[in-house]
Amino acid sequence: MAGPTITTVSEMLALDEPLLLDSGQSLAGVQIAYEAYGSLSPAKDNAVLLCHATSGDQHVASPHPITGKPGWWDRMVGPGKPIDTTRFYVICANVLGGCMGSTGPSSPAPDGQPYAMRFPVITIRDMVRAQVALLEALGIEKLYAVVGGSMGGMQGLSLAANWPHIAERVLCIGGTATMPAQNIAFQEVGRQAIMADPDWQGGSYYNTGKTPAAGLGVARMAAHITYLSESSLTEKFGRRLQNRNSKTFGFEADFQIESYLRHQGLTFSERFDANSYLYITRAMSYFDLAEENLSKGGGGRLADAFADTNARFCVVSFDSDWLYPTELSRGLAHALNAAGAPVSFVELSAPFGHDSFLLEVPELDRVVAGFLGQ
Amino acid sequence: MAGPTITTVSEMLALDEPLLLDSGQSLAGVQIAYEAYGSLSPAKDNAVLLCHATSGDQHVASPHPITGKPGWWDRMVGPGKPIDTTRFYVICANVLGGCMGSTGPSSPAPDGQPYAMRFPVITIRDMVRAQVALLEALGIEKLYAVVGGSMGGMQGLSLAANWPHIAERVLCIGGTATMPAQNIAFQEVGRQAIMADPDWQGGSYYNTGKTPAAGLGVARMAAHITYLSESSLTEKFGRRLQNRNSKTFGFEADFQIESYLRHQGLTFSERFDANSYLYITRAMSYFDLAEENLSKGGGGRLADAFADTNARFCVVSFDSDWLYPTELSRGLAHALNAAGAPVSFVELSAPFGHDSFLLEVPELDRVVAGFLGQ
Repeated sequence: MAGPTITTVSEMLALDEPLLLDSGQSLAGVQIAYEAYGSLSPAKDNAVLLCHATSGDQHVASPHPITGKPGWWDRMVGPGKPIDTTRFYVICANVLGGCMGSTGPSSPAPDGQPYAMRFPVITIRDMVRAQVALLEALGIEKLYAVVGGSMGGMQGLSLAANWPHIAERVLCIGGTATMPAQNIAFQEVGRQAIMADPDWQGGSYYNTGKTPAAGLGVARMAAHITYLSESSLTEKFGRRLQNRNSKTFGFEADFQIESYLRHQGLTFSERFDANSYLYITRAMSYFDLAEENLSKGGGGRLADAFADTNARFCVVSFDSDWLYPTELSRGLAHALNAAGAPVSFVELSAPFGHDSFLLEVPELDRVVAGFLGQ
Repeated sequence: MAGPTITTVSEMLALDEPLLLDSGQSLAGVQIAYEAYGSLSPAKDNAVLLCHATSGDQHVASPHPITGKPGWWDRMVGPGKPIDTTRFYVICANVLGGCMGSTGPSSPAPDGQPYAMRFPVITIRDMVRAQVALLEALGIEKLYAVVGGSMGGMQGLSLAANWPHIAERVLCIGGTATMPAQNIAFQEVGRQAIMADPDWQGGSYYNTGKTPAAGLGVARMAAHITYLSESSLTEKFGRRLQNRNSKTFGFEADFQIESYLRHQGLTFSERFDANSYLYITRAMSYFDLAEENLSKGGGGRLADAFADTNARFCVVSFDSDWLYPTELSRGLAHALNAAGAPVSFVELSAPFGHDSFLLEVPELDRVVAGFLGQ
């Protein structure tokens, strides 16, 4: 694992109490790794919780400790930026189940050995449980806002549905309240790719000197295609060849898109734990706020999930996002309307597909700044 | 490999002459396995060549010898069916590079051992070369029509572009004349999944008692998602659980869609050779009739590829096909128009995505019957 030496060290919080999970299991000794930017006001009324996506982490606006690259939302978070750290106290925690410091399958179990597949299967709500515990430890009772894209948006929705008095504003970008079948399918392919790799070894690879890098790489390649739009792939790569003038009539990466995907798979395997990928995608496929409401004894409509919230919502989709298409966001906005929640919904035009929320989309900046300015 | 015992035996043709391939290599001893239905008329003017898709074979309207299932276009080909075998002599050959009898990577090389990765990389045009050699051996100089869906459609286009005087009609369903970047990307994921499987063993697995079934299964799972529409997945599976009342909080196939995909991967590995999958998807990613025309010294426009053909064309797309979307078929129809070829183009409404050409779409039956009736 080559790379620059980075000194970014996240804050660490050890939870005093075990987390009681949706599975019924209890998880003791949970640690949460987080980054914070800006200052908490004396009234503690300026906290913004950012929730990261599947392959993200707490390094929102600080260099990534493995890759050395800028934080994943560096363009959005900082002094004078749409999420203005001179005004807001911005917190982002590595999700429960993750691999960047928060407790996950690579963490030591009580017996001192890594949990591996002994780690309990978690849900999006469990991830949010850990976030809520973090807020409590920081003495933060109210959030000015919770903000997230993709799986981050789902966490924001779960917070609003299950802890309806914490967040005053919920900004959900390219998310959904119910994971649809096609996404479950792609998530399953990723997991099967990992578990088909003999180096996965039933998940117990941590002390073997091997990791299921090939399987995780394939999982990442498949997922990465779904994050981009067809037109952006055509524009960025088309059928252009990679450092050659003609096809080789072989199985090397003749095309730029092939070389790019292989690189994506390789670098992802260098920074991400395969078991974390299993658990996080499992949590996503389980995510369905309507069903969750039903199992809590509610009416089971999506709107019922938001019956108790006083938050105002902003729901954003991108016209080129085929993985979490506008239809999902529109359905969410309708449900919020039906629940009587104030909601603004906007479909932005951006060429980059699902990844648009991470990329240069000035209109998103204005939406974010505007919603947080209210 | 469990399954019923089927007695379907395809016709076999051994080519006298070596095939000179696009790579510059020469392939001797080529065998072509094919099925034929109906009778060739004395004037030899009623032959219809069917070309199969990526995972298809010559068993169009006869039971598959491994799975025992009906042929892949049983609903379309037969007496009184849209491709009427009381009227037409219908031929379908396993493609060069395939694994159902035609010469491919699993076939013996001159040294008696399987070619494995010594098999030359082939193109769609090379597949058509083999088909043309078959027609010559059968004494067929003219085709009433060439018909194919997906990769089958590409072969039809290649035939029209490179042997412009053979086919009088070309019916291309859900195809393209140029493989776009997103499809190249998905094809690469499939190959990487296979090559990441240690049982692949650099392709030389034939005498080891092992096959890269897991890798090929993952490849198939990923591909299969792309063959279906999001709405058909939602309708067919949604978030329904598989033989259980609640989630297991584990990594079993809790959801029907997960179980279905695993089954697809498993059964595909039982009937298809992984190396054939590598070679066939490679041929597809290389496919670009415009570029091919340029390399032949033509003008390099897609229309130029069809400059010499006298065929009439019918181009069909499906509105729910996001893998080979209507845009590709429309571009093809425009190019054919620009080449002065008679072409009818129709986008059919069907819910099943790319796989619509294989499924119950009565309007497709009418289009096929109508085009062949002209």
